[in-house]
Parts: sequence; structure tokens; C-alpha cells
Amino acid sequence: MAIRVGLLGFGRTGSVVAKELVSDSELSLQWVCRKTINPALTYASHALGFDGKFSPFVAFDKLTPEFIKKNPVDIVIDFSSGKATALYNTLADAGVRIVTAISKYTPEEEALIKKASLKTAILSSPNITLGINWMMIASKVLQKIIPLADIEVIEEHFRDKKETSGTALRLADHLDIDPKLHVNSIRVGGVVGKHEVVFGLPNQTIRIVHESISRSAFGSGAAFAGKWLFKKPSGLYSMEQVVHEKFMKKVKELEFDPST
Amino acid sequence: MAIRVGLLGFGRTGSVVAKELVSDSELSLQWVCRKTINPALTYASHALGFDGKFSPFVAFDKLTPEFIKKNPVDIVIDFSSGKATALYNTLADAGVRIVTAISKYTPEEEALIKKASLKTAILSSPNITLGINWMMIASKVLQKIIPLADIEVIEEHFRDKKETSGTALRLADHLDIDPKLHVNSIRVGGVVGKHEVVFGLPNQTIRIVHESISRSAFGSGAAFAGKWLFKKPSGLYSMEQVVHEKFMKKVKELEFDPST
Amino acid sequence: MAIRVGLLGFGRTGSVVAKELVSDSELSLQWVCRKTINPALTYASHALGFDGKFSPFVAFDKLTPEFIKKNPVDIVIDFSSGKATALYNTLADAGVRIVTAISKYTPEEEALIKKASLKTAILSSPNITLGINWMMIASKVLQKIIPLADIEVIEEHFRDKKETSGTALRLADHLDIDPKLHVNSIRVGGVVGKHEVVFGLPNQTIRIVHESISRSAFGSGAAFAGKWLFKKPSGLYSMEQVVHEKFMKKVKELEFDPST
Amino acid sequence: MAIRVGLLGFGRTGSVVAKELVSDSELSLQWVCRKTINPALTYASHALGFDGKFSPFVAFDKLTPEFIKKNPVDIVIDFSSGKATALYNTLADAGVRIVTAISKYTPEEEALIKKASLKTAILSSPNITLGINWMMIASKVLQKIIPLADIEVIEEHFRDKKETSGTALRLADHLDIDPKLHVNSIRVGGVVGKHEVVFGLPNQTIRIVHESISRSAFGSGAAFAGKWLFKKPSGLYSMEQVVHEKFMKKVKELEFDPST
Repeated sequence: MAIRVGLLGFGRTGSVVAKELVSDSELSLQWVCRKTINPALTYASHALGFDGKFSPFVAFDKLTPEFIKKNPVDIVIDFSSGKATALYNTLADAGVRIVTAISKYTPEEEALIKKASLKTAILSSPNITLGINWMMIASKVLQKIIPLADIEVIEEHFRDKKETSGTALRLADHLDIDPKLHVNSIRVGGVVGKHEVVFGLPNQTIRIVHESISRSAFGSGAAFAGKWLFKKPSGLYSMEQVVHEKFMKKVKELEFDPST
Repeated sequence: MAIRVGLLGFGRTGSVVAKELVSDSELSLQWVCRKTINPALTYASHALGFDGKFSPFVAFDKLTPEFIKKNPVDIVIDFSSGKATALYNTLADAGVRIVTAISKYTPEEEALIKKASLKTAILSSPNITLGINWMMIASKVLQKIIPLADIEVIEEHFRDKKETSGTALRLADHLDIDPKLHVNSIRVGGVVGKHEVVFGLPNQTIRIVHESISRSAFGSGAAFAGKWLFKKPSGLYSMEQVVHEKFMKKVKELEFDPST
Repeated sequence: MAIRVGLLGFGRTGSVVAKELVSDSELSLQWVCRKTINPALTYASHALGFDGKFSPFVAFDKLTPEFIKKNPVDIVIDFSSGKATALYNTLADAGVRIVTAISKYTPEEEALIKKASLKTAILSSPNITLGINWMMIASKVLQKIIPLADIEVIEEHFRDKKETSGTALRLADHLDIDPKLHVNSIRVGGVVGKHEVVFGLPNQTIRIVHESISRSAFGSGAAFAGKWLFKKPSGLYSMEQVVHEKFMKKVKELEFDPST
Repeated sequence: MAIRVGLLGFGRTGSVVAKELVSDSELSLQWVCRKTINPALTYASHALGFDGKFSPFVAFDKLTPEFIKKNPVDIVIDFSSGKATALYNTLADAGVRIVTAISKYTPEEEALIKKASLKTAILSSPNITLGINWMMIASKVLQKIIPLADIEVIEEHFRDKKETSGTALRLADHLDIDPKLHVNSIRVGGVVGKHEVVFGLPNQTIRIVHESISRSAFGSGAAFAGKWLFKKPSGLYSMEQVVHEKFMKKVKELEFDPST
């Protein structure tokens, strides 16, 4: 049976994520919660271009314990805003697990997440793609293998993105390099998102490059995270943990036979 | 005390490697073995541009048990040719460990290596750089994490390199992709060596790119391999094993705290 | 006053192009011609998500001299298929100029285009973006400046694109290199489109790289071509000519003062 | 008959340049001028690894009108330092043309160059490679063709290069972008030199990338410049002019036939 999913947020990213969730046969999108509901458009399925009526919209202030009882889900995926953390306690009480991919939280919102994670399993990651998290771990391992390498991070995004990419800052944090000196931000045209870590040695360079083609990548990442979280006990998790767990397991499987 | 090293081969790559070995304070280059000795140039140090007299040349046919007894080394690093395997039994009997970075061996030569590896520790790898071997392992792990990704290998080398790069073939072998279909060879100008593995998903691509700046990279790789082999028991090892061992250890050290 | 435009085709690319045309204040999209009309969806504006009623659909078999008389346009932009060339004579008789961006034509279709171009101005280019055509010309000039350079073309596209990219073949044709030997096709994931020309010299490489972010690029290219064609006399033109004309003009404007 | 060349400077770059000049059959390296002469090493040919005795060294203070009379050259190529401008008047009086590739000049040195250029032909360019100068011109033309594009320059060099690359600054100057905001300097390992200009549009990006493989590129560029200057009248020239002249000529040769 498919895992029942509720989605918070239906903006620029949320709607793309909804499309990914709907197209995943292991998941079933039960409802989509958004700030205000247009009476002429009450099903997410219609907004996504489907003919059928499924995945109804529900307004944020209607997401009550009663609603959840009548419309139960196993997982809620949150692409709305930090304010949705106000609902986390209600969700946790109903036994719903939560995947959140919000970029930034206030300390108060973070406290709400921590509190809810005592009662349910929550996975919180600003960047929810497998690719970026693999990059994070592979970079850290490479740094430990060639500790003398110089490291620079280059991130490219569309012209209007004002601040430094959160993923680039996280990479810098993990690699223990000063983001003011070693993160280079390129802002041009409509670039969706590109992150590059350069490792320089006297006689060789190694680059790890991640390029986003579209925001749909967040949807498949969230779907993956939801499935991973499905059986997990209460607690706070991150996408890096998910990938790290996989990483450890896969590295162990490798065997290198010098005779080959 | 420095590890005592003997070098086989002083051609285009061998001489660059010698320079790296001499500049490594943990190693001491005792002698360099080459096919024929020019009577006017009897020290590798002179050929490398040093004023001092050290690292004398010795001809291949003078590398006898007696010579080794008088000029003992802990490790021999071999950048000569497959024919040098004829010396491996003598070296093994003298308790010398061997690092060999020859691209291709005949079955007969491989048999000689295996036989010698019963008596001493031998590390054999056509590509001896840390970077390429990290790339090999990181690629395999990534493939296991995103098994649905399409994978292509692109390798770029100088115009006159005729065959497909051995490293690219090895990457294809490890990633279980058909080299005839998925290894793309670009031959232009004087490119020293570039290898790229592209992982393509519907909404993102990840690339691992290794670029060689000069052949000196082989020297630092061989130096690293020599130090690693110094304490190892008899047997046949590969650079991938060295890096895999490091990789495993480093991945274990990583900890991901979701609260950070 | 805005240039009046008619669009042929409303498929995957056509609909994206329509969006670009509608958002260009110098153009006015009068109607969109498609194979069959859904009676519930008679305005392209609705299909594009606008509330207003504009840019009505018209079926191919309704695109008669009478229709054009009542719904006059200055330019027709064609993103449908080779079959639409059957309409070109009618369009030419009505004094309508034509921009066509179809990838491949049969000899019969090409004959129809040539015939119509005796009566009106037609611009025909399989790749209608300014970027790709600049790349075409800049590559040819570079080849003439460094004639000894080795040249390779690398093109990357989504996994399901079966044939070699037409743009890559055209690049090879212009650069006079054998596409079987020097065009390298990489097929991975969901890559929209990437073309790279590598020039290799013994001591340096130069690369020109064009990456498509979305199909909207065809829309802005077609809009540009339409404006360029607006005042042109009868005849057959290409996007390369447009860019070449600009190129020549701009190169002449450059002045290099050695004292700066 | 070969063009007779004198070389000023025999440091890290000068010696590599000398090798390129010697291997060019259209040139004949008559002598090499350096600060101090080692009495044991009086021929550049020996320092370059040749057996024969040719291209003798001459000390800077011995480069007198008498020396030039006895050892005439057509062209002097200068890879020494700004101080060598003190010799330019002497060279100009002897009818010698000058190619100089010094990165930075003081205003006084620039005045000496200008003065000498009244009597002889001088080509002065901090970056003497064809590739970089093609990049300069092609970038300017592209900017004029797509004036709305965002432009960023990325330059990568070895870790110890402290200042921003002069070539990157010149690119920024030509493209009229603020180098403080739009030139990104990456310093890692032993990267010889890489310059990239990124043009970003909403739906596409174009990149021009130049990579140096070794300093020998300066030698072939200087050789090219010397031949170009050989017949030129008095005056001050730049490598950009040379390439611009070629560029203009080659663009004119191109013809675009829409029927192909």
C-alpha cells in the first residue's frame, strides 16, 4: 500500500514538488495545504493539469486535529514557510512524521521543531536532494584523504538571487573554510543552480560539480526522504544523515581485488 | 630515518618522479636504475639539476644481489617497463618491497609479479595518483546511491595518444558500463590528462572531474604508495586498496548532527 | 505599433514559444494555429494561464486566404512540422513573412519553401537562438586564426534523444571536421542541451560552451528573427546570416588602441 | 631566410620562450641577453639541453650599439623586466623592432616605449597568446550581440599568485564591468592559468574558456607577434590589434548561404 502524504505549500517550488509526489507510485498525495483556497480551484490535481479530482486543497487554518483524523496521512512534506512549524505539534500528536525543506528558521521555529521531534520523526534539511548531500560527504572524505589540497567553492545562480547560496555556506562549514574568502558567488541570467567544489594540489585538480536542471529535483528528494523516514522512531534527522547512512553501507560493500 | 628508495626507469615520467622522490624528506633516493649509463652522467642528481653528487645511476644488468646487498633499499619504485619484472624475484629475495606503475603487463610478466608477491609486498597500479583512485571509489559509491543515473565517462588527452585511456577503461569496468558505448575520448592539442564521470538524473547532473597538471603527480602518488607499503606483509596490493582503506576510515570518522 | 504575429504549432516547444511572444511588447500574437482545436479551449491565452481572452486558436485546415484577410499578420512563426510548408504559398500570397525553426525538411518541403521565398521573406533555421549562431561564427573565425588547432565538438542532451544533435552536425559542417570522428554525443538524464567546441593547441585549449536552460530560448530567438525579417525583401534567409550581419557590424565598431 | 631574433630575459618564462623560438624554423635566435652571465654557461643552447653551441648569452650592460652592429637582429623579444626599456632607444636607433610581453610598466617606462616607437615598430602586450586575445575580441562582439546578458569573469591560478590576473582585469576593462564585483579569483594548487567569461541570459548561458597548459604558449605567441611586426612601420602596436586585424579579415571571408 502506498504511503499517504500531505503537502504543506503550493508556491513556485511546492507545486513542482506536488507533481513529483503524484507521479511516484509508492506515495499517495492525500491533500495539499495552502494559505488561501480559490473556491474555483479546490483540487491540486486540477492545478497540476490532471482531469481527475484528487489531492484536495485545505487552508492552513483548517488543518485541525479533526481534519487529520478524517484525512489521515503517514508523512507531511513541508515546502511552505517557517510559520508552518506552528502546526508541527498537532501533526506530531497525530503520529504524523514530517519532512521539512525550509531554507531558514528563526530560533523560535527551531525550538518548535525540536519539541515536536520528541514525539515524532522529523527530517529537516534546507537542501533535500541526494546529489547535493552526496557531494557534501564525498567532499569531506576527499578533504581528509588529501588534507593539503586548497579548496574553493563556486556557486552559480540566477541574477536575482541576492544572498550566498545556503548549500555553499553549508559546504564551507563542513569543509571548515572561511566562506568570506573561499566561496565565490556568480550571478548570471537564469541559471537554476550550480555548485562546484575545487580541490587543488600542485600537480592535479579534482572538481565535484552539481547542477540542478529544475526544481523537480526537490520533489524526488522529498519523496525519497519521506520513504526513509516512514519507519523511523521519534527524533530529529537530516538528509545528510540519510545519505551518510547509505554512503557507509555502500563503501563497505566495495571490495578491491588487486588482481583485477 | 628516511625510507630508502631505489627507482627503476629514468625516461619522460621516471625523471619527473625522481625529482619528486628527492624532494620528499621522508624518502631517500639511493640509486636510479636505467638501461644504459652515459659515462659523462653517472648521477641522477646531476641530471636533475642539482650540484651535489647523489642518487647514482646503475645499469639494469648491474642490478645484482651483490649490488643490492651493498646498496640496500627498503622500496623499489618501478616506472620503467614490463621487462623489469625479470628483476622482481631478486628484489623479493632481498626483502625489498615494490611499487609498480606500469600501464600494461603481458600474462608472463603478471605471473612474475604474483610469484614475487609471495615473498614481498608489491603494490601494482597503472594509475598511481590519489586523485584518480578517490574518483574511482567516490564514483562507485555515488552509483550505488543513485542507481538510476545514466553514467558517461569523458577523457581528454593530447592528440597523439592513440588508445583509450587505461584509467577511463578501469572507471568503466568499475561502474559496469560498456566502454564502447559510454567512454568518450577527446584528443586535442597538448592536454596532459582529464577524466570526467557524468551522472545524469532527470533533474540534476553530478560530475567528478580530475585534471592532471603535470606528470609530477605520479611521483607524489608513488611516494605515498611507498610509505604505505613500508610496513605491509607479503602480498599483492593496489592503489585502489590504499585509497579504499583511507576512504573507509574517513567515512567512519564523519558524524552528521542534524541539529547543526 | 506592435508587429502582428501568427504562430504555427502549439506542442511542447510551440506553447513555450507562445509565452515568450506574448510577453514581448514589440509583438502582438494574433492567433495560434494547431492541428485540432478542443472546443473547451479556444484561446491560447487560457492555455498559457492568462485570464483574458486573446490569441485564439485556429485549426490548420481553417488557415485559408479568407481567414488571413480577416485576421492579418505581418509575420508567421512556425514551430509545427514540415507539413506546414503546404501553407507557405498562401501565406506568401498574402504578403506574410515567415520564420521557421523546423529541424528537418524533406526535399519536397524544401522546394515549397524556396518557391514561397520568391514572393516573401523567409528565415529558416533549425536552431534559432542567438547564442548558438554566435558560437557557429566565433568558432569559424577562431579556426581561421589558429588553423593548426585540433577541434572536437561535445554535445550533451537528455537520455532519450536518439540521433546526434543537428546543431552539432552543423558545427562540424562549418568547421569542416568529420562528425563521425569528432562529434561526441553524451546522453544523460534530463540535460536540456549543451554544446561545446574544444580547440586544442600544444600549450593551450580554448572552449566555447553553450548551455540551454529551457526551451524558452527558442521563443526569444524567434521573436528576434521576426523583428529582423520585418522589413526584409523577398528571399531566403538564415539565423546565421542575421548573426553574421550583426557580427560584422560589431567587429567593425571595435577599435584597439595599444596605448590603453 | 629566417628572421633574426634577440631575446631579453632568461628566467622562468624567458627560458621556455627561448626553446620555442629555437624550434621555429622561420626564426633564428642570435643571442640571449640576461642580467649576469655564468662563465661556465655561455650559450643558451647548452642551458636548453642542446649539444651545439649557438645563441650565446650577453650581459645587459654589454648590449651596446657596437654589439648590435656586430650581432645584428631584426626583432628583439623582451621577457625580462620593465628596466629593459632603458635599452629601447638603442635598439630603435639600430632599426630593431621590439616585442615586449612585460605585465606592468611604470609611467616612466611607458614613456620610454612611446618615445622609441617613434623610430621603430613596437608591439607591447602583457598577454601575448593568440588564444587570450581572440577571447578578448570574441567576448566584446558577443556582448554587443546580446547586450542584456549578465557577464562574469572567473580566473583560476596557482595558490601563490597574489594579485588578480592582469588578463582578467583587461577582460573586465574591455567588457566595461566592475572588476571588484564581477571578476572572481580562484587560487588553488598548481593551476597554470584558466580564464572564463560567462554570459548569462534568462534561458541560456555561453562560456568562453581559455586554459594554459604551459608557459610555452607565451613563446609561440611571441614568435607569431615577431613575424607580424617584421614588415610594420614605426609605431606602437598591441597583440589585440594583431588578432583584431586577423579577426576582421576572417569574418569578412565567411559567407552564410541559407540554402546550405
